[in-house]
Amino acid sequence: MSKSPGEFHLIERLLRRLGPGRRAILGPGDDCAILSATHARQLLTIDSMVEDVHFKLAWGTPEALGARALTVNLSDIAAMGGKPTVCVVNLAVRDGLGMRFFERMYKGLRRAAARAEVEVVGGNITRAGALAITIALLGEVRGAALRRDAARPGDTIYVTGTMGDAAAGLRILSGRLRARTVARKFLIDRFLQPTARLQAGLRLARIKPAPAAIDLSDGLWQDLGHILERSGAGAEIDAGALPLSAAYRAAVGDDPALALGGGDDYELLFCLRRAVAAPALTRRLGVRVSRIGRITSSGEAVLLNARGSVRRGSAPLLAGWDQLCSQSGG
Amino acid sequence: MSKSPGEFHLIERLLRRLGPGRRAILGPGDDCAILSATHARQLLTIDSMVEDVHFKLAWGTPEALGARALTVNLSDIAAMGGKPTVCVVNLAVRDGLGMRFFERMYKGLRRAAARAEVEVVGGNITRAGALAITIALLGEVRGAALRRDAARPGDTIYVTGTMGDAAAGLRILSGRLRARTVARKFLIDRFLQPTARLQAGLRLARIKPAPAAIDLSDGLWQDLGHILERSGAGAEIDAGALPLSAAYRAAVGDDPALALGGGDDYELLFCLRRAVAAPALTRRLGVRVSRIGRITSSGEAVLLNARGSVRRGSAPLLAGWDQLCSQSGG
Repeated sequence: MSKSPGEFHLIERLLRRLGPGRRAILGPGDDCAILSATHARQLLTIDSMVEDVHFKLAWGTPEALGARALTVNLSDIAAMGGKPTVCVVNLAVRDGLGMRFFERMYKGLRRAAARAEVEVVGGNITRAGALAITIALLGEVRGAALRRDAARPGDTIYVTGTMGDAAAGLRILSGRLRARTVARKFLIDRFLQPTARLQAGLRLARIKPAPAAIDLSDGLWQDLGHILERSGAGAEIDAGALPLSAAYRAAVGDDPALALGGGDDYELLFCLRRAVAAPALTRRLGVRVSRIGRITSSGEAVLLNARGSVRRGSAPLLAGWDQLCSQSGG
Repeated sequence: MSKSPGEFHLIERLLRRLGPGRRAILGPGDDCAILSATHARQLLTIDSMVEDVHFKLAWGTPEALGARALTVNLSDIAAMGGKPTVCVVNLAVRDGLGMRFFERMYKGLRRAAARAEVEVVGGNITRAGALAITIALLGEVRGAALRRDAARPGDTIYVTGTMGDAAAGLRILSGRLRARTVARKFLIDRFLQPTARLQAGLRLARIKPAPAAIDLSDGLWQDLGHILERSGAGAEIDAGALPLSAAYRAAVGDDPALALGGGDDYELLFCLRRAVAAPALTRRLGVRVSRIGRITSSGEAVLLNARGSVRRGSAPLLAGWDQLCSQSGG
């Protein structure tokens, strides 16, 4: 707790280097950023990454950490079908991290922001017992937004990408799972360097009626639960249809428990009123899409496998990460 | 680190109770809030309060803590001459705090938000080793914004309210200063329950040319330094003109060191091109205003007392809280 005012000053200067750009009339360095007027509806979200809760420094580079702190927010904008615009960063700084660390972290953040055309317009630095990066991100939505409450019985449920990779990567990093070199690198990268599905979200927003959607941060089963709760619906999920990567199969096997319960994939789950074949959707969204089930009027989520239904839960009580993973021995 | 998913669910429900209102098309409970389009320029700021860094739970009520977490952000909007509109709340939760605590904290936050006509449109909850409340706040500015870089040599420098009260209150709370009942309560309240000068900020924004302004969060001397650095100017401050409360004089005496170096007052410091008598400004802004010095072209800040200049510093290196307070034995 003994960062000197001088050190804080240096870290603050790093922050100021980030802005402003086209959307900010005034960037970091004043009490607030001033943003140009916009005539679109705006999206607003906030998310946080805390050392020893969401990450350990030994797991990856400072650059990847900075990028990931933004990506988890970008993913929320993607899940609403929006375009991210500007963000502010709150950095909680602990002792023992030098300027070089923060320079590298900001480099990763700046790069991820530039890639997503996001301007970092301000921030705040505070002391704390653990490093934490909290980002509030604004976005714009020009058409219909993708909402969690829009699912209706009969809708077909899809996901982008593959499931459970990040959770497997996390298990490898924390020594609870072993994998060979190629699979190991793939799974760890999926955890440390996730991709927000911004383009897929924007393209989904052009479909009418607007699909229900959510990003998979807490795990498929739990995030599906949010859709069901908000939409007042149930779902049947086909366990055999869950998209598993070759690396997942190599490290975990064919058990989909981690793909159902594991978080941090930052893929999108969405529901279409009119079913479309997965290959056509894959072409349309620019990312692999799999059909995994359908929305029902039952008010509960049912997982179907070759032997019939295997797990049930009423929507608000769907088990997530913690419970499912302990069941699967994670 | 063992908050159960069920407990998180309950705290999340508390958050959802807060919104939405007029400005949000969709409030808490989805990936992002959706905000109505606005045609004004917007202000954006983020600030954080961390347990054992900015507060101790034993010092005050959970309600006051919730309110203060918003007030420190409101103060940034006030310092730009804006009107706050919507916010999102990131809550880092540690073990050992029950639902009753969070209910009371949200009650205080909700009340402060209602008073400032701010809608809480979303949030996020995470585990952490210490309680931390991070709020990102949007506002609107319809006229000119009050910027740190607008001070010019010859400007007269003013402050609202009295200085150093919160720093004295903090010292009383942490057992480093003693005071009698009435002064004690006043000073502690000034620390625990600060007031953002929103009305004064809005009224200052009507003055032409737009005054330079900043809110006093880090302490007068350091915050003045931000104005000087951004404006490329110097200042002379009249130590005898610093407004000290009767409670400050009773507890601390006539030494203005704590009023210069102590933070957390959340008053406004501003600079006018055309000097106005303090009583007239007091009537105009609806809060006590004192004239404390003037902007110079010297590039350094000089503190004048009856014996002449007593302390100098080049603008970017102005000492704040830490250094001045150790000099004054705080």
